[in-house]
Amino acid sequence: MKKNLGAGCIAYPTPTYIVATYNEDGSCDVMNVAWGGLCASKPPCVEIALNTGRKTRENILRTNAFTINLCGQDKMEECDYFGLVSGAKEDKLAKVGYTTTKSEFVNAPVIDAFPLTIECEVYDTKEIGPHLMVIGEIKNVLADESILNEKGQVDIEKLKPFGYDPVGNKYVAFDKVIGDAFGAGLKILKG
Amino acid sequence: MKKNLGAGCIAYPTPTYIVATYNEDGSCDVMNVAWGGLCASKPPCVEIALNTGRKTRENILRTNAFTINLCGQDKMEECDYFGLVSGAKEDKLAKVGYTTTKSEFVNAPVIDAFPLTIECEVYDTKEIGPHLMVIGEIKNVLADESILNEKGQVDIEKLKPFGYDPVGNKYVAFDKVIGDAFGAGLKILKG
Repeated sequence: MKKNLGAGCIAYPTPTYIVATYNEDGSCDVMNVAWGGLCASKPPCVEIALNTGRKTRENILRTNAFTINLCGQDKMEECDYFGLVSGAKEDKLAKVGYTTTKSEFVNAPVIDAFPLTIECEVYDTKEIGPHLMVIGEIKNVLADESILNEKGQVDIEKLKPFGYDPVGNKYVAFDKVIGDAFGAGLKILKG
Repeated sequence: MKKNLGAGCIAYPTPTYIVATYNEDGSCDVMNVAWGGLCASKPPCVEIALNTGRKTRENILRTNAFTINLCGQDKMEECDYFGLVSGAKEDKLAKVGYTTTKSEFVNAPVIDAFPLTIECEVYDTKEIGPHLMVIGEIKNVLADESILNEKGQVDIEKLKPFGYDPVGNKYVAFDKVIGDAFGAGLKILKG
């Protein structure tokens, strides 16, 4: 028995992207963004959607750049805090004691304490209702050695990332591998 | 110590969307899509990116609609199979014994065996290199009662969804709740 739930923002998994940008005075702002995802391969691109009035939105339109900073589940509280208050009211990075370094590739800050940063330059933008969808071209991915495997690739079981449940308003772990892509379905293909 | 990994499609979590569309002859095609995410709230929108040559891409441009079908971890093998072969070569739904029903809201099929379907009409499209990013306006979300909580909302611990690790090419569980959004960070806010 199926039910129509109406038109709403429901999809799984949904990310917890910590988007960092430069304010007009050169200080850094961070924001917790759940609407986003990869959207192209050549060039590699990722989209984020920002509501009207967000400081991050102004910053991106001025600097043409942003970073997406990802962390392990040990920093969930800090990520949630970044979503609880506007950078216009509080220096959020100072409050949690985080420092930043300017990206080598784009005009945006890298959160030093975060093990993975996706460095983006604005490729295009599109207004959809009150949201601005920003397509970022990924110019570099910066990773801490602690989350890399022996081949130098990001290891999800070391990073221990998490995402967001937009219905239950919960953070959800994303590190338990359950099968091989391009592998799990082979017996159906051959069967 | 951090390392530059270069420009690549790395982000967590990344989804496993099973996108269903109508072929020209009225039969159904399904595809496993990893590049995608929510991208607006009013109207609710989700984007998916489709490479050149995909049958799903042609179908969407002709029918102006698609569905994103989500399932539990028990159907991981079927989802992977949908990504292993083109619908031009094989009737993938018939092979796994799945039936479909036409969406009440858009011109696209609903996979009956899947407990959650996001029904989308094309809002806009944008070419980014060889990919076509399709923005779908969510017209309805259809959910099986078995995945709803007592309030009639989708319960992630009942759905037991999963996503994709684009670096390790693995499927990854997304059902272990680790904290409250708009809650976990309150002690930092007040502290």
